[in-house]
Amino acid sequence: MAVYTEIGDDELRDFTALYEIGEVLSCKGIAEGVENSNFLLTTERGNFILTLYEKRVAPQDLPFFIGLMDHLAHQGVACPTPVRARDGEALRELCGRPAAIVTFLNGMWPRRIDPAHCAGLGGALARLHLAGASFPMVRPNNLSVAGWQRLFHSCAERAGELQKGLADELADELAFLAAAWPRELPTGVIHADLFPDNVFFRDHELSGLIDFYFACTDFLAYDIAICLNAWCFEPDLSFNVTKARLLVREYRAVRQLSTSELAALPLLARGSALRFLLTRLYDWLNQTAGALVRPKDPTEYLRKLRFHRGITGPAAYGIDG
Amino acid sequence: MAVYTEIGDDELRDFTALYEIGEVLSCKGIAEGVENSNFLLTTERGNFILTLYEKRVAPQDLPFFIGLMDHLAHQGVACPTPVRARDGEALRELCGRPAAIVTFLNGMWPRRIDPAHCAGLGGALARLHLAGASFPMVRPNNLSVAGWQRLFHSCAERAGELQKGLADELADELAFLAAAWPRELPTGVIHADLFPDNVFFRDHELSGLIDFYFACTDFLAYDIAICLNAWCFEPDLSFNVTKARLLVREYRAVRQLSTSELAALPLLARGSALRFLLTRLYDWLNQTAGALVRPKDPTEYLRKLRFHRGITGPAAYGIDG
Repeated sequence: MAVYTEIGDDELRDFTALYEIGEVLSCKGIAEGVENSNFLLTTERGNFILTLYEKRVAPQDLPFFIGLMDHLAHQGVACPTPVRARDGEALRELCGRPAAIVTFLNGMWPRRIDPAHCAGLGGALARLHLAGASFPMVRPNNLSVAGWQRLFHSCAERAGELQKGLADELADELAFLAAAWPRELPTGVIHADLFPDNVFFRDHELSGLIDFYFACTDFLAYDIAICLNAWCFEPDLSFNVTKARLLVREYRAVRQLSTSELAALPLLARGSALRFLLTRLYDWLNQTAGALVRPKDPTEYLRKLRFHRGITGPAAYGIDG
Repeated sequence: MAVYTEIGDDELRDFTALYEIGEVLSCKGIAEGVENSNFLLTTERGNFILTLYEKRVAPQDLPFFIGLMDHLAHQGVACPTPVRARDGEALRELCGRPAAIVTFLNGMWPRRIDPAHCAGLGGALARLHLAGASFPMVRPNNLSVAGWQRLFHSCAERAGELQKGLADELADELAFLAAAWPRELPTGVIHADLFPDNVFFRDHELSGLIDFYFACTDFLAYDIAICLNAWCFEPDLSFNVTKARLLVREYRAVRQLSTSELAALPLLARGSALRFLLTRLYDWLNQTAGALVRPKDPTEYLRKLRFHRGITGPAAYGIDG
């Protein structure tokens, strides 16, 4: 949860006057999105989300994110649509930060995941990948192998504070993944952060995807691997093969997976587990006193990583060959 | 800002099914209200606020607060109206906590106070006091003299951590106020926490008052004193007599102030400053590691208290006799 920036009265009035969204009736900071300040804006025309991009989002990446949401929404993907001001611009500045207004999506993210959620997710993810194919912009994934190495080096010395011997284990894992990481798999726009809090449902029907601020260009199957990690483990970290099977089955009903994509899933899942382990470890080691956000537990992803190390093929996830 | 409780999917569905508010389209934790968990609930019928009462609100006080909002709203005061479920009850339980849904108020609280806000506040405060006169319930103010003494005793030993000599200064102030505190002034329902973030405006027109969870039965003029402290000091803590004059003038245009109420204002303002100084000092000394709420600065109210000590009569606030 995070609201970092307080918007002044005059600033908000001047900013919203640039749009054709009617009078602002209410503007409340909402406890969603760890990276940015988000406000639920109620106007005469309905609800909108106003986002101020805080320092963790690189300003040069914003045209990619905004352009992608615009593209996907026009391709029929249920995602926030950037609202353009009268001058046609959707990306502006407010309180000295980049800012945008996007449409409000109905639905709630599931607190308790059941298999039906995973089925809905699989289909939506595949449709996202198909819709992204015609998006012309490219953004390399700065949280892939090279990025993990950078993160690891900034954490290695203190990794033992989390768990004894962790630095050695991570170094070995990184060396393995750097050597084994796939070079040729179908590539395109991926969401790269499709955790349950970024997926809205209305009574088990998926109603929208949000938070495209890690989206990038990478292996499409890597997005599936991220979802396997984020959706298919139970709270006790046992792996639910029914969820994984439904997720992948509904994905494949929309977009075919090649034999090499299927075969790569255990490796991609290891990489994805390492990615979230490293960013959480970094945040855990670099907590600032008085921060309003509690860091997430890195050991959750360490345990997931170890699980995937024991997997030899997609069948062990419950996925048909 | 605070959202303490996460509401489960099934719990929210079962809870909202008890009301005639239509399908829930969205439920987002909002960064308002330090004491409770607040959610902006969007349903087919519009926006509502769902509040879960956390441990700082005593459950036995809730019928007073809910009853008061209901009473005031029916008297025409712009404040949240408790929404009754089909069984007629407005106060229920959710996630093991007392919970209520109230109507959504349009408007925003002012980040930068100007004199027109204070004028609007004065009139609204007087109308609140008049409307409260017919409310039958009574709730003693547990944050008046006896409450200050209890708070002081729990903080005295460590008060010096904030400022050297503070314990002695507070002990003297408490002794003075205990002896001098008025015994006979017009009494009724007061809001008791009417800070700017509890007062909504639409383009300088006051549109509503929220957060009645400190409301109680006390001297009506004490509410004015709280507002003088909360609204009439500039960010540099200089006192703006124009704001105070407008606030009191517009109050008196709705409800007469007696000579004894006017004469008591400096004393009531000292008491009010001490009240917020003590609660902030308590919170500052008892911060919990990992808490999501940054404690407010107690020294702000220490400086306000010292200012009021030098005031001999209401004229020094810019208030006409």
